[in-house]
Amino acid sequence: MEVDGDAEIQQAVRFALFHVLQAGARAECRAIAAKGLTGPGYDGHSFWDTETFVLPVLTCTAPLAAAQPLRWRHATLPAALNRAQQLGLKGAAFPWRTLNGDECSAYWPAGTAAFHVNADIADAVVRYMHATGDMTFEREVGLELLVQTARLWRSLGHHDHQGRFHLDGVTGPDEYSAISDDNVYTNLMAQQNLRAAADAAERHPDLALDFGVDDEETAEWRDAAERMNLPYNEVLGVHEQSNGFTGHQLWDFAGTRTDQYPLMLHFPYFDIYRKQVIKQADLVMAMYLRGDAFTADEKARNFAYYEPLTVRDSSLSACVQAVMAAEVGQLRLAYDYLGEAAMMDLSDLESNTRDGLHIASLAGAWIALVAGFGGLRHCDGSVGFAPKLPEQLGRLAFTVQVLQRRLRVEITGPEATYELVDGDTLDIEHYGETVTLKQGAVVTRQVPQIPEAPPVGQPAGRHPAHRGWTPGRHESGAAET
Amino acid sequence: MEVDGDAEIQQAVRFALFHVLQAGARAECRAIAAKGLTGPGYDGHSFWDTETFVLPVLTCTAPLAAAQPLRWRHATLPAALNRAQQLGLKGAAFPWRTLNGDECSAYWPAGTAAFHVNADIADAVVRYMHATGDMTFEREVGLELLVQTARLWRSLGHHDHQGRFHLDGVTGPDEYSAISDDNVYTNLMAQQNLRAAADAAERHPDLALDFGVDDEETAEWRDAAERMNLPYNEVLGVHEQSNGFTGHQLWDFAGTRTDQYPLMLHFPYFDIYRKQVIKQADLVMAMYLRGDAFTADEKARNFAYYEPLTVRDSSLSACVQAVMAAEVGQLRLAYDYLGEAAMMDLSDLESNTRDGLHIASLAGAWIALVAGFGGLRHCDGSVGFAPKLPEQLGRLAFTVQVLQRRLRVEITGPEATYELVDGDTLDIEHYGETVTLKQGAVVTRQVPQIPEAPPVGQPAGRHPAHRGWTPGRHESGAAET
Repeated sequence: MEVDGDAEIQQAVRFALFHVLQAGARAECRAIAAKGLTGPGYDGHSFWDTETFVLPVLTCTAPLAAAQPLRWRHATLPAALNRAQQLGLKGAAFPWRTLNGDECSAYWPAGTAAFHVNADIADAVVRYMHATGDMTFEREVGLELLVQTARLWRSLGHHDHQGRFHLDGVTGPDEYSAISDDNVYTNLMAQQNLRAAADAAERHPDLALDFGVDDEETAEWRDAAERMNLPYNEVLGVHEQSNGFTGHQLWDFAGTRTDQYPLMLHFPYFDIYRKQVIKQADLVMAMYLRGDAFTADEKARNFAYYEPLTVRDSSLSACVQAVMAAEVGQLRLAYDYLGEAAMMDLSDLESNTRDGLHIASLAGAWIALVAGFGGLRHCDGSVGFAPKLPEQLGRLAFTVQVLQRRLRVEITGPEATYELVDGDTLDIEHYGETVTLKQGAVVTRQVPQIPEAPPVGQPAGRHPAHRGWTPGRHESGAAET
Repeated sequence: MEVDGDAEIQQAVRFALFHVLQAGARAECRAIAAKGLTGPGYDGHSFWDTETFVLPVLTCTAPLAAAQPLRWRHATLPAALNRAQQLGLKGAAFPWRTLNGDECSAYWPAGTAAFHVNADIADAVVRYMHATGDMTFEREVGLELLVQTARLWRSLGHHDHQGRFHLDGVTGPDEYSAISDDNVYTNLMAQQNLRAAADAAERHPDLALDFGVDDEETAEWRDAAERMNLPYNEVLGVHEQSNGFTGHQLWDFAGTRTDQYPLMLHFPYFDIYRKQVIKQADLVMAMYLRGDAFTADEKARNFAYYEPLTVRDSSLSACVQAVMAAEVGQLRLAYDYLGEAAMMDLSDLESNTRDGLHIASLAGAWIALVAGFGGLRHCDGSVGFAPKLPEQLGRLAFTVQVLQRRLRVEITGPEATYELVDGDTLDIEHYGETVTLKQGAVVTRQVPQIPEAPPVGQPAGRHPAHRGWTPGRHESGAAET
């Protein structure tokens, strides 16, 4: 990973990759804890951080290392099957926080109800298979993880009179809402989970039968996925984070002092849960991981609506906001968020690095660069890039493993260069244009010059530190730099 | 209270009145606990039971005794003002469960968020004033209780783009849902609270000014009340208990064994909260206490919708269901529920009478008779009756204090007789017809012969014990008696 124009970021992303590899690559069938082995924070527990933040980096850089934590998840299936049964559900309910596979979360509105961890595990399986095509893994681990999580979603959800499929009473990534109906992130990730399970069962009918999967069951999964409800506010023209969210009262950001963040340490949850205030990227996260479910206009409108509500009281937020800020043309903001994700520990931004490193945020630095400024997206067996650099960076270069090949990508301001380092000839997309890559050949494409989109604001006092630019009048955080 | 035709009920209602008076009439500025002084259940705590179940009986039978628990509430105002401030709200937030005025509930989804207790206290104030016209009480206690609770509602709620007023993130009487938006019971009771506070401030402008109330504040209360949002499902033609409720999955009643009730001891709350299953009358309670907000058709449709979802895992349910069953023409069912409320302790129906008597359910026996078969309703300075007896009862007679008079009411099957025992000439309503009562004169009116409405079912296995009738085919609980 080479970053020209910002030595601090270059150093930080090396620091980040070292620690992500340190935490993940040698875990060898153990969980990757939120702090790795660097400190006592979170008491050594693992969360969705592993599958959603750490594994994307490992999958693209050291794919065999990504298989190990998923094999660990698979080893905990008995506990997850048992947990689902306790909850009156089918399939597997993986724990929100855990040491050995048992649920260790006692606070149920944000623990038990955060079912999305199951779809996040499925997403990591799909991503790993996409990168490696490792059929041994799929037969030994992947299929069963997909099948048991799909069963969970089917039993957790239900159809309404109009045939729409709902997932009620869940908590999405944003822990400042809870027990909500039809959280868009959860629903879209569950939709992918259901489809991936049906597809995998189709690939391995013999093994699927061993798990008791028949064609009626896979048809139910596909149908539920097809009819998944996604709440949308027609008047505002934005998706609802969860059903009814945009009708809630706005948090009084102007009346909240800087020393009252993070909010959960200064306000009762009764007050936080019933208002429009977001701890961390939730719908914005859905637009990254399930970008195929949104139009470009929807992404821009949703980003503009949710950005001023998101206080980033979680270190899992900035990197995702960086990715989507870049996609919707907010390159300066994306660059600031890259800085926040990358410098989380080196600058001790949350004043708790003594408790251990934020491994997911460190992984997020890589994500912000590759998915944000590189614009890498995987989707259904294809891979695309939409590179764009902020004015502060002269060059960004990285190597990723996708579709069983290694690709070298180098982006300068006006151009992007793609090189197939090894593997068979491959079609990729560059801004939607198909580009054929043959091993050894270098292909260069122009980067469209997209003007910076009009800035969107953050909650009062919560804009990220600006890196190398000064906000003008009418821009976010004009009073501060 | 005389009940001919059911000696057990006659005996039970005397038992009930004895214990309600025992618990309440000598409390003398102390709280009335859920168990009175009869046992250790609920650790001696008081809840909304006092204002909503016990005080209606005391207000109509021994009104000066009803003033005492309200004076006790008033004495705890400093704690309630402090609690509201802790929660970032204005006015007073009275505790969900308490000994001395401090909140003793630790389980916030069903404790802190059950704000309706504040409107229930206001309702008791309004009811007491309606019965007694006690202006000393209003100036010393009533006005301030109304003002501080109205302030709570105004600060808890907010307007949306269309100007509708919402109360989000609250828990209504039904504790099998929580943290819901626009609970109809809460919204309607808050509406009454806001209006009553504005009216009381209008009556006592000098004193209101001492509490800092000006015309802008009362106008805000009236406007919020006027714009109160009441969610309604147009397709089903029923009100939503709370926003989105009717879209939730139905509880699997057929798959729930008798020994799995009460549900909260056998299923996780995550599962209970996200499904259509009701612990106790909630919307049905709103139709009783705020009957003016519903048409007769709406009441019948709502009752038919919610009755099959209500499992009565709370002893506060049967009496309210008796009242509304009688109003919508389900007289047999009303009679069964009267029996359940009246026999709760004498027959130890919940197998926990050893923990103390269910004082509210005992009060509910009186409520079921007077408000159910007597059809007593108070509304805005008027009082009405809609008497009707189930076939098992030959006669029901009772005396009530209303509008500073004592009325004797005697109902036989075909006729109702009204006598003004003391007080000035009064107009009452008998089935909507104005009847003028002069002291000493007895007025008789016909009781319309209303055919029994088609029966509605209860959740499988949860119908009340039938009293003196056998369900035919196509009727609820046909397999059991």
